[in-house]
Amino acid sequence: MGAGPVITLTTDFGGRDPWVGTMKGVMIGIVPGAQLIDLAHEIARHDVWEAALALEAAAPYFPAGTVHLAVVDPEVGSARRGLVVVLPNQRFVGPDNGVFTPFLTGDRWRAFQLSAVEFHLTDVSATFHGRDVFAPAAAHLAAGVQPDRFGPPVSDPVRLRWPVATRVGDGVVGEVIHVDRFGNLATSIMAEEMPSEPVVGIGGRSVSLARTYADVGTGGLVAMVGSGKRLEVAVREGSAAETLGLGRGARVEVTPRMRRPIAGA
Amino acid sequence: MGAGPVITLTTDFGGRDPWVGTMKGVMIGIVPGAQLIDLAHEIARHDVWEAALALEAAAPYFPAGTVHLAVVDPEVGSARRGLVVVLPNQRFVGPDNGVFTPFLTGDRWRAFQLSAVEFHLTDVSATFHGRDVFAPAAAHLAAGVQPDRFGPPVSDPVRLRWPVATRVGDGVVGEVIHVDRFGNLATSIMAEEMPSEPVVGIGGRSVSLARTYADVGTGGLVAMVGSGKRLEVAVREGSAAETLGLGRGARVEVTPRMRRPIAGA
Amino acid sequence: MGAGPVITLTTDFGGRDPWVGTMKGVMIGIVPGAQLIDLAHEIARHDVWEAALALEAAAPYFPAGTVHLAVVDPEVGSARRGLVVVLPNQRFVGPDNGVFTPFLTGDRWRAFQLSAVEFHLTDVSATFHGRDVFAPAAAHLAAGVQPDRFGPPVSDPVRLRWPVATRVGDGVVGEVIHVDRFGNLATSIMAEEMPSEPVVGIGGRSVSLARTYADVGTGGLVAMVGSGKRLEVAVREGSAAETLGLGRGARVEVTPRMRRPIAGA
Repeated sequence: MGAGPVITLTTDFGGRDPWVGTMKGVMIGIVPGAQLIDLAHEIARHDVWEAALALEAAAPYFPAGTVHLAVVDPEVGSARRGLVVVLPNQRFVGPDNGVFTPFLTGDRWRAFQLSAVEFHLTDVSATFHGRDVFAPAAAHLAAGVQPDRFGPPVSDPVRLRWPVATRVGDGVVGEVIHVDRFGNLATSIMAEEMPSEPVVGIGGRSVSLARTYADVGTGGLVAMVGSGKRLEVAVREGSAAETLGLGRGARVEVTPRMRRPIAGA
Repeated sequence: MGAGPVITLTTDFGGRDPWVGTMKGVMIGIVPGAQLIDLAHEIARHDVWEAALALEAAAPYFPAGTVHLAVVDPEVGSARRGLVVVLPNQRFVGPDNGVFTPFLTGDRWRAFQLSAVEFHLTDVSATFHGRDVFAPAAAHLAAGVQPDRFGPPVSDPVRLRWPVATRVGDGVVGEVIHVDRFGNLATSIMAEEMPSEPVVGIGGRSVSLARTYADVGTGGLVAMVGSGKRLEVAVREGSAAETLGLGRGARVEVTPRMRRPIAGA
Repeated sequence: MGAGPVITLTTDFGGRDPWVGTMKGVMIGIVPGAQLIDLAHEIARHDVWEAALALEAAAPYFPAGTVHLAVVDPEVGSARRGLVVVLPNQRFVGPDNGVFTPFLTGDRWRAFQLSAVEFHLTDVSATFHGRDVFAPAAAHLAAGVQPDRFGPPVSDPVRLRWPVATRVGDGVVGEVIHVDRFGNLATSIMAEEMPSEPVVGIGGRSVSLARTYADVGTGGLVAMVGSGKRLEVAVREGSAAETLGLGRGARVEVTPRMRRPIAGA
């Protein structure tokens, strides 16, 4: 079928202005036949963390060799670097602001600065590096340019604080890390970190772990292992964020059934 | 040109989270070169009926062989079945919750349950069958897998109540079935069911049938045959839903000119 | 790679209804393998001017031969014409309502009316020419049909008033022409029209020209040359539209440093 290389796009540009489309025009001019796939463009403005979570959730489901272009770039025009990050199966292009944090673990990543002007547009604006620097780099990378040709290696890419779970006694304490469109609360606690027969404490409520929404009635509060293996708290056909009045950063604890909640913390 | 197979996507996932993109990653991994086309992703949450209407309006305009993937799935994780539905010119993949109702008429459809695990992802979550079951099935179907290989035939797929028009005297009575982004009201009355010289009664107002918006002034109430052959009620450069204070389920009647409105009903 | 022709889409259809997808179905049926790229679908309803600005910003970044389909069409069903507009490097299809104004300058454009019914769908509705007239025309054009086969030449296409800057003394006066998703104000003043060491006056405030957002602190008001070479006024990590209480049409002036603001006007 002669399928072209796959490039995904993640931005906070929304759907009213033609900025995403403009980046696609730049890329398709460099690598005709590329398959351009939108991951998310309604990322909250300048929310690098939300973009990082979107990439963490989606990237593993793409074929090897996919290039993920991420442009959530509050510091555009400043001295912040641009990066290409290469892992054995995935590749990333975007600003060096922490958006690639989930992939910068272990020793299997390499990063390079996007300094070689031959891979920029001729005329680089101070306000739209997505179009002038990152999109061309992503397209050239997808077209086969070796990563080290974009610039010198980077050993200290910016990383975000990445909330994880903390073991406390025989339980585990974490926090809400994301509220999705449905008001579901994703947490920093992964399925494999939870005790058996877990009870989830959040916002003063105590919730048993269900396998699925269908285990509770409409409007019922439910804790589940979500599609990304994270503990999630949801309300069936409702919004957990609204019901509990909670958002990012809210404390979540998981204890084995028949134990008391973890004190203090 | 060696064009790949066409797969459309209809969901209530919105544009903030990467769920649509994740499904595309799964599909492009199975059928590289597939042409992935978004139908609608801002379907109201869990509104199976709205998704069914979107498919009814759009599917006839796609080339034969297109696979339509629909994931509006309030019962994900429950015992509800997954389906592949095959018609002579169109194919569908999604939950068995009525979303394919408009296509399950006559005797030209066949349906099969999505039970063969070889066409699921290895690891099926309880919360995201769009990614783990439906997207892989749609991709395998588009790649040429025969429909009966996905599972046993289904003879009793779920169907939604599908509002139609009722003949009353020499008129016809129906209801509003959809309010679109512009506040236009689509009804259950089809063009061919209307009497000649029709007058449309809705919300206590009486409206003549126009050929187009341009037949009335700005702010004017207008009844027209819409792009899907349905009777629609609109306000030029305004919202009929707001002007009339009406929504889905509101009564609409069409009578021949010079007759009295249909009593009672 | 055998890449198909590129067609972009710009509409005010939003993401809730399947109208954009339906147009894509029509096009992919006519030109399998076409690369369909969304420019913007959240254009404000019936805002032909906003669509024209989107095309002006994005079209130059697409490869030669790209077809740009624009359907913001408040007069659908009236006698307004449909157009194909051809320039040396870009081609456009849509209603003759001014949406192509930025490209109708100089003497390098040609326009033709979309009157040849062989390039319409068989059944043309009065309400959705995007699907029935413009999408098929765009696809046939992309597939290689010569522009003059669509209908007779048009020498007087509709043009919008296109705000430009006016020189006043050693300064220049213009207006806000667009407010983007971030509340940034784009103006009718182009970079090359500004005096050296410019000071921007807007909403009673006086702002120095910065190179980038990073030159001011969070919440700071900044004037910059934007990504389309237009003078823009922004608030770092905030909304200039909200901060200044201004929108489209607001007056902007640029004077050389150490001069008084332009009086009157």
